[in-house]
Amino acid sequence: MNSVNIGMIGLGNVGSGVWRVLEKKKEEANSFPWNVLEIKKIGVRDVRKERQVKVPASLLTQDIDSIINSPHIDVIVEVAGGRDEGFKIISRAINAGKHVVTANKDVIASYGLELFRLARSKGVKIYFEASVGAGIPIIRVLREDLVANSIQEIRAILNGTSNYILTRMSENGEDFGTALGMAQRLGYAEPNPDNDVKGVDAAYKITILSSIAFNTSVSPDDIYVEGIDTVSIRDIEYAHELGYEIKSLAIARKHNDGLELRVHPTMIPRTSMLAAVRGVYNGIYIVGDAVGPMMFYGRGAGSLPTASAVVSDLCDLVRSLRDGSGGQLEVPALDNIPIRPIEKLETRYYIRLNVPDRPGVLAGIAMVFGNLGISIASVVQKEVPDTKGQAELVIITHTAQEGPFRQAISQMDRLDVVNKVESTLRIEGVVEE
Amino acid sequence: MNSVNIGMIGLGNVGSGVWRVLEKKKEEANSFPWNVLEIKKIGVRDVRKERQVKVPASLLTQDIDSIINSPHIDVIVEVAGGRDEGFKIISRAINAGKHVVTANKDVIASYGLELFRLARSKGVKIYFEASVGAGIPIIRVLREDLVANSIQEIRAILNGTSNYILTRMSENGEDFGTALGMAQRLGYAEPNPDNDVKGVDAAYKITILSSIAFNTSVSPDDIYVEGIDTVSIRDIEYAHELGYEIKSLAIARKHNDGLELRVHPTMIPRTSMLAAVRGVYNGIYIVGDAVGPMMFYGRGAGSLPTASAVVSDLCDLVRSLRDGSGGQLEVPALDNIPIRPIEKLETRYYIRLNVPDRPGVLAGIAMVFGNLGISIASVVQKEVPDTKGQAELVIITHTAQEGPFRQAISQMDRLDVVNKVESTLRIEGVVEE
Repeated sequence: MNSVNIGMIGLGNVGSGVWRVLEKKKEEANSFPWNVLEIKKIGVRDVRKERQVKVPASLLTQDIDSIINSPHIDVIVEVAGGRDEGFKIISRAINAGKHVVTANKDVIASYGLELFRLARSKGVKIYFEASVGAGIPIIRVLREDLVANSIQEIRAILNGTSNYILTRMSENGEDFGTALGMAQRLGYAEPNPDNDVKGVDAAYKITILSSIAFNTSVSPDDIYVEGIDTVSIRDIEYAHELGYEIKSLAIARKHNDGLELRVHPTMIPRTSMLAAVRGVYNGIYIVGDAVGPMMFYGRGAGSLPTASAVVSDLCDLVRSLRDGSGGQLEVPALDNIPIRPIEKLETRYYIRLNVPDRPGVLAGIAMVFGNLGISIASVVQKEVPDTKGQAELVIITHTAQEGPFRQAISQMDRLDVVNKVESTLRIEGVVEE
Repeated sequence: MNSVNIGMIGLGNVGSGVWRVLEKKKEEANSFPWNVLEIKKIGVRDVRKERQVKVPASLLTQDIDSIINSPHIDVIVEVAGGRDEGFKIISRAINAGKHVVTANKDVIASYGLELFRLARSKGVKIYFEASVGAGIPIIRVLREDLVANSIQEIRAILNGTSNYILTRMSENGEDFGTALGMAQRLGYAEPNPDNDVKGVDAAYKITILSSIAFNTSVSPDDIYVEGIDTVSIRDIEYAHELGYEIKSLAIARKHNDGLELRVHPTMIPRTSMLAAVRGVYNGIYIVGDAVGPMMFYGRGAGSLPTASAVVSDLCDLVRSLRDGSGGQLEVPALDNIPIRPIEKLETRYYIRLNVPDRPGVLAGIAMVFGNLGISIASVVQKEVPDTKGQAELVIITHTAQEGPFRQAISQMDRLDVVNKVESTLRIEGVVEE
């Protein structure tokens, strides 16, 4: 077949990886599909900037439009990033009749449906495997390999930075600030880490995964989000004592009355697969009605892992062009599942309270829970070192609803027998005895 | 498009699952691809036998040939099992111009290359995602999603029965016989468990995975195999003490001079992802040069998980038929990589010895290792309870070669200062301090 000409927008970390992988593959084998994939133009902000890879100067241009509108370009690889800039590039590329491969999760999470519809109306394809979990094949797995299943739930570690920080806290006993500092020194966290540690990045990714898994329209605003910046080393110590680990999970679960969607630090049993995901790695745990529980694990970011997915998308496109169609599945009619408010969530909770060390404390707290129909599963009380007459009370509840639970917490905060509600965490899964 | 007519051979555990999944999907959505997939005939040994699913009697026949040769059948789903019977059915189906979807690992491992070539010459497709890891998408992931990578190694838990037994031994302190008995009572192990516990099943599966990952011809006879029936609870206890877990791993690794291929009980760090794979689950750990380390986890057997893969293969076929071609990749020219003999293996070893509790013992043993150029990393010595003057010596070596290591063991067995070499195990990975 004729060559498939690529216009790549962006030559940063991911773009350099795509260049490297294609160069290497072409050296190894001059056969299909490598012999047809050609990077013809690369759009960059500054053609004179030092690059990680040696690219012929003739390929570089600052004129993005000339690439998008060139009749000699078949596919636009968008690896420049940025939500609104990305949307502009991709939508213009589609309108110009180009296929698109992108690694841009912000665009797909925010404008995915719009872009898919536009692409269909223009008869072009849009691929975005790299937008979630980098090289972990999860988009196509959900769409094709698990096609025989109704997906019941997704529980995932989708942000490597947060997981790296929590791993350091858990394994080295460092506090959040220290672990974040290390992550920044190693280049795993940005100077402004909010996008990662406040759960925004994971929310974008679970938006994409849940849209596909449940065949419905999800927006990033539908996701309830809490960051990991409130997790204290004290909570991690208690978690360990009780047989748990604390991980930032993105959770999507289908109920009869709607979708449960949330990103927050979560206590999970130390023996669970997700608890074994350490450092900058991602883990995506999925339950399908036929296949049962599965997990997909790998690097969720980085130049070459992300390029691995971009190049696999390009190969998919090449095959589908050769065969006339195929490759990508249709977008079926959407199910339009409502989103459940967080107040409807039913789960188990962990609460850590600072209380005065005197009689009647537990009775007072138990009464608040009891009045709201929340049942206590276990209680641990400890002295607080270096204080006089203070104790720490850790309570695990049975399954309760978020609404009443929040009421209980706010009532407790005003209780005489509670100095302070130090922290609360949601629990997924039960530690086996 | 016209309906794609299926002739299914076998209506046991997997066949019933395929029937169930297709029924359910058709109920849920009468759209592509479900509206074109039709099971037209089912070949069974005994049409009067009680079945797990309600199938119209008119679909059943004992005349397998009539299905294979029917002009109204487009694809044969072979879920009857058995190596030679399976080969006969599949090769006859291909010769009759039918596409094939199979879950039969024995056939693909033993006759894969022959069948792929036959299929190509007849212009039909053969799919076998279900043959390894049931519903875990691994065949297509290796072929398509990881196409940008050179695969460097695979380390995998591919036999759920063995992993269930080892998990019970590790977590409940049961010995092999007791754990096997429980596995048999629960239906996880056959009355004759040899195929699972002696590593044969895992060897078939790693044959298939390594053929695809390294694009070469591998036969089940190329795999060095040891079962888990020699693993003692004592070794598991020592493993835990040293920070390890014992798992039956299938390992395939590419070296400059050939492929390393083996299945045996292996000590791995307790913090590794594979150590977190408990019970009847499978875990397939893969390292690609671009994507880095990944792991795929899920149920490796069972009616519905296996059906999930069979039905996903059917959907893949349907798409490729609709689009004229595509879907499945070509079989490229094989690399014909030589297989390394086990004697060339370089790894770390664990040895447990029963020795007399007197001076000079360690010196004698160290001398044997030293003379063969094997260096000792650590030694633990313990008394053996309820014996007089016996001690147990556990040695971990640095990386050594299997050939000299075996020499050392056989020399030790004749040594005055060694009562018995109780066990040896190979180690993968280093416990972090």
